[in-house]
Amino acid sequence: MRLYWSTRSPFARKVTLCAHELGLADRIALVPAVVGMSQPNREVMRSNPLNKIPTLLLDDGRALYDSVVIIAHLDRLAGSGRVIPAAWEAKLEALRRHALGSGLIDLLVLWRNERDRPDGARSEAHLAAYAVKADAALDALEGEADALAALPLDIGHVAVGCALGYMDFRFGTRDWRPGRHRLAAWHAALAARPSYRATLHREG
Amino acid sequence: MRLYWSTRSPFARKVTLCAHELGLADRIALVPAVVGMSQPNREVMRSNPLNKIPTLLLDDGRALYDSVVIIAHLDRLAGSGRVIPAAWEAKLEALRRHALGSGLIDLLVLWRNERDRPDGARSEAHLAAYAVKADAALDALEGEADALAALPLDIGHVAVGCALGYMDFRFGTRDWRPGRHRLAAWHAALAARPSYRATLHREG
Repeated sequence: MRLYWSTRSPFARKVTLCAHELGLADRIALVPAVVGMSQPNREVMRSNPLNKIPTLLLDDGRALYDSVVIIAHLDRLAGSGRVIPAAWEAKLEALRRHALGSGLIDLLVLWRNERDRPDGARSEAHLAAYAVKADAALDALEGEADALAALPLDIGHVAVGCALGYMDFRFGTRDWRPGRHRLAAWHAALAARPSYRATLHREG
Repeated sequence: MRLYWSTRSPFARKVTLCAHELGLADRIALVPAVVGMSQPNREVMRSNPLNKIPTLLLDDGRALYDSVVIIAHLDRLAGSGRVIPAAWEAKLEALRRHALGSGLIDLLVLWRNERDRPDGARSEAHLAAYAVKADAALDALEGEADALAALPLDIGHVAVGCALGYMDFRFGTRDWRPGRHRLAAWHAALAARPSYRATLHREG
């Protein structure tokens, strides 16, 4: 399998982190790809017209996206029920928590895009709303930290962990930890795992 | 169940369209909610800190999001395997096609947001990239139209149908049908279904 991927993409990191947890990392060839919001990448678009990474190319020629679909495929390859729980209620809760973590990533990516616009083209109303929503999501996650710590790692943990890792990478001057001690303790434990350490964001 | 929802939201429409297909529409009370990108809605945020609709409030007090998680819950309530196929390969393909349709909706919502910015704050590079990606996604869907027509309706059809319905609603002067006759024919058949007609977008 080949994965269009970047060291800077939190969505791609969700996939590679799961691949490490599932013991599948050495079966995936990483293909670096840059897909800016205003810079379509024609090579990626041949497989995913939305110009997004991660996009997984299967050996039979099919392309899979988005990250959650790729993770479902990897979970299946690893025997099923590993990062996507098999039992219905646990699965529903994992997918809801995944939506919260992944939605936070969506928001952070848009926030950064807005923040980096040239003077005059930046919307202060959007920037203020992103801050309010990110803080609310982080506060909600603080309320879920005990559940995160009590459950075996699933796709929800992965999305939340990648959201926090992206906060550290792109919003490092805006520390999310003060007042969120349980979430910080849970994240510190996750950050010690080989899968997290093997997939740290970096420039280039 | 109560659903935070709007007549203008294509993501909320995915849920209500599925509810109609699954025979569950009369079990869901629709609660109109406005959630602008720069205008957090404090009531919605008490249930979903990301300030997004659709958000489903269950009778036990839990809140479910995003749209795909809500649809998975409704499918389960309706007996499972209806709009999310039970067989693995069919499910994977439905989820991939859902990601394509839903990713197109994401793009259209951002495109409209950019288009409606005040003069000077609009990024022509972003607008051009949105057009390129939307056309590529629509061309890819034209290539999938025969498969859409051959398969029973699933979450993939719903996402694609809602993307095309949103094109008609918000990008009406930019007709997507020319050169995409198979997709247009498939969409016309979908648009004749009671579920589609019961969930048409409208202002207010």
